[in-house]
Amino acid sequence: MDSTSSKIYLDYNATTPLAPEVVDCVTEALTDAWANPSSSTDFGRKAKELIDQSRKKIATMLNAEASEVIFLSGGTEANNMVLQTALKYFKSWAGKSIQMSNSCKPHIVTTNVEHDAILLPLKHFEEEQQADVAYVPVSSTCGQVLAEEIEKQIRLHTCLVSVMLANNETGVIMPVAEISRKIRKLNEIRQMEGLCQILLHTDAAQAIGKITVDAKELEVDYLTVVGHKFYGPRIGALYVKNLGDPKIPLYPMFFGGGQEHRFRPGTENTPMIHGLGCAAELISRNLKIYQENMMKMRDLLEQSLAEEFGENVIVNCNAAMRLPNTSSVSFRKTALTGGEILSRCPELMASTGAACHGTGKPSEILMASGVAFEDARSAVRLSVGRDTTSKQIEQTVLMLKTAVNLLD
Amino acid sequence: MDSTSSKIYLDYNATTPLAPEVVDCVTEALTDAWANPSSSTDFGRKAKELIDQSRKKIATMLNAEASEVIFLSGGTEANNMVLQTALKYFKSWAGKSIQMSNSCKPHIVTTNVEHDAILLPLKHFEEEQQADVAYVPVSSTCGQVLAEEIEKQIRLHTCLVSVMLANNETGVIMPVAEISRKIRKLNEIRQMEGLCQILLHTDAAQAIGKITVDAKELEVDYLTVVGHKFYGPRIGALYVKNLGDPKIPLYPMFFGGGQEHRFRPGTENTPMIHGLGCAAELISRNLKIYQENMMKMRDLLEQSLAEEFGENVIVNCNAAMRLPNTSSVSFRKTALTGGEILSRCPELMASTGAACHGTGKPSEILMASGVAFEDARSAVRLSVGRDTTSKQIEQTVLMLKTAVNLLD
Repeated sequence: MDSTSSKIYLDYNATTPLAPEVVDCVTEALTDAWANPSSSTDFGRKAKELIDQSRKKIATMLNAEASEVIFLSGGTEANNMVLQTALKYFKSWAGKSIQMSNSCKPHIVTTNVEHDAILLPLKHFEEEQQADVAYVPVSSTCGQVLAEEIEKQIRLHTCLVSVMLANNETGVIMPVAEISRKIRKLNEIRQMEGLCQILLHTDAAQAIGKITVDAKELEVDYLTVVGHKFYGPRIGALYVKNLGDPKIPLYPMFFGGGQEHRFRPGTENTPMIHGLGCAAELISRNLKIYQENMMKMRDLLEQSLAEEFGENVIVNCNAAMRLPNTSSVSFRKTALTGGEILSRCPELMASTGAACHGTGKPSEILMASGVAFEDARSAVRLSVGRDTTSKQIEQTVLMLKTAVNLLD
Repeated sequence: MDSTSSKIYLDYNATTPLAPEVVDCVTEALTDAWANPSSSTDFGRKAKELIDQSRKKIATMLNAEASEVIFLSGGTEANNMVLQTALKYFKSWAGKSIQMSNSCKPHIVTTNVEHDAILLPLKHFEEEQQADVAYVPVSSTCGQVLAEEIEKQIRLHTCLVSVMLANNETGVIMPVAEISRKIRKLNEIRQMEGLCQILLHTDAAQAIGKITVDAKELEVDYLTVVGHKFYGPRIGALYVKNLGDPKIPLYPMFFGGGQEHRFRPGTENTPMIHGLGCAAELISRNLKIYQENMMKMRDLLEQSLAEEFGENVIVNCNAAMRLPNTSSVSFRKTALTGGEILSRCPELMASTGAACHGTGKPSEILMASGVAFEDARSAVRLSVGRDTTSKQIEQTVLMLKTAVNLLD
């Protein structure tokens, strides 16, 4: 982890280091802005100011308003809050609607390649009979969900569509803006018919810091922000369009102090919020530079692997629009699994899939994305970062060559 | 906030600064332990180790087992999680019980001086018809709840008793161990009668770092830990007796990655968890020293105020066992409110009550604690810290003298 380490870290999709500027911000606030932001003392006001500044910086990064951003403990909380909100929103709507009986269940549409922080709450809703869920399969040729496939699953009781902006394993970018346009058209008709309006959420955890994420362009109602995926600290934020407008509701999961306009009580984590603002500011300033380096390194990696392994390496889902930093590669003519390959590269820090998952079985996300069982078995996710160098890429390819060829 | 500041901070119950050792831990982990603790890389393992160490340190501080501690975003989350757990626990029990119909409502017993992170979730449950709640009045002579008053409120459907370990405004220490003994006796009888077992929670936010908090001695099922009240960072933890034992259930509020044994998914906030462990370790080592200084300064403050103001100052709830650092004082023969008094002491950082509340009205917590309306109106909460000096106390008394006497 120290700078003299010879290890090569290509697991930036699992988590990123904190940018030095972010470390400075957090450290500074730990000693200078420790007061309670709800306290009316001078010290408290200073802490509150830092929080307000960060809110503006997150908003700027997303092309949103500061009043549309609330701070949360992380992406898991943000996603769970949106999903819980959908249940309560539907219940409230069904209670008022003449057409609906109170026993109607809400319906939620999502994809079959979402992060566990979406999939598992939805599975829980199903188990508890709280909602019906459609898990729309992504295209088996490119790993991208088609907007029309989402549209096809909309039912009378659909109250939420949640589609990730980019997949964490394949890097595939989903057509959220297109989905949004379809939903808005549907909502116009549904309003006339007295049907429940469909809310739209995107988990942008893997997209922020890698591609432009513009809330206005995407026209989503909710967007999840996760600090540790873009060189920020381990907290998150939620963008809510016109927060406070009853048409796009947000229900708190906790009750307590009045923080975050009562949407998220609890004394604010000022140092980490300050750091999150700093991480957002870096992206607003430097996204193009970051993107260029990531794409250059990712392309070099894929090209070098192709030169080395020929047709015995494939890049999964490369027919779709992908994040500039993510390569899911599978090796052929090897009996080794992705995990075994990585264990033969002790100097390479990468993973076979989402860090939150255990290793062992082939990734279900890859298989859902159209990757064949045998290819999913040998898959390795290599995700580059802002400062990845071509020397590191060369070394990575050499390590993989040694590791994979041993048994080939 | 910087060390050259001439301001005197006596608002340690609102929040504490971070101990320098804690700042070092957090800062170190920000750069050295940023990897994803769920990642199987060396870096990930290092982060996981730090988290495990912190868990042990929290457990040591509480005289508990490491396996009984989970990390959360803060006290608000911990309290809400316990209360939500009580609802689900009762529902599950009622579903299995022959004696109960599914429409039975759970009953929760608490006091009328709890923090908003307990009171407001309970009010919400009542509004939503999810639970009945008894808010047991504390004694109007000393501000302490009597164990027998808690016992009197137990009903057939009572599934949880939640009583804070120490009050944030008055510093009054509640007889949680005594309540625990009574509940255990009741539970023995209830078990034979096939009644729901009563779970016991204490919010120890204000007690930790000020008095000994021993989970085994208290014999509670759940105990809330809040870092920023004991010179730690803005995260929290929850102690759950024999975590995993179905008799003392814990239901997750979020679903997602498998962190914290699925009780609390979300990538762990390693730096802050590391800092929380450090703050706990400091307490395990130095609590007596901290206590002695706090009590000395608190006593000096109360004595000096008595010398200065005579019978025109009173210390609220001083008939009860109190935290060694908290003085709620009220001034008599003055038209000034507590807020007005503090605004005349710009160099004194203190508050009129809980920071999470707005100022203005007299504190309801004080009035519930038996403080007369006029006294509650002029009340100021002065809470000292580990490093408060007698010089600061002298200056505080001088400032208050100037402020209060102006209109007297």
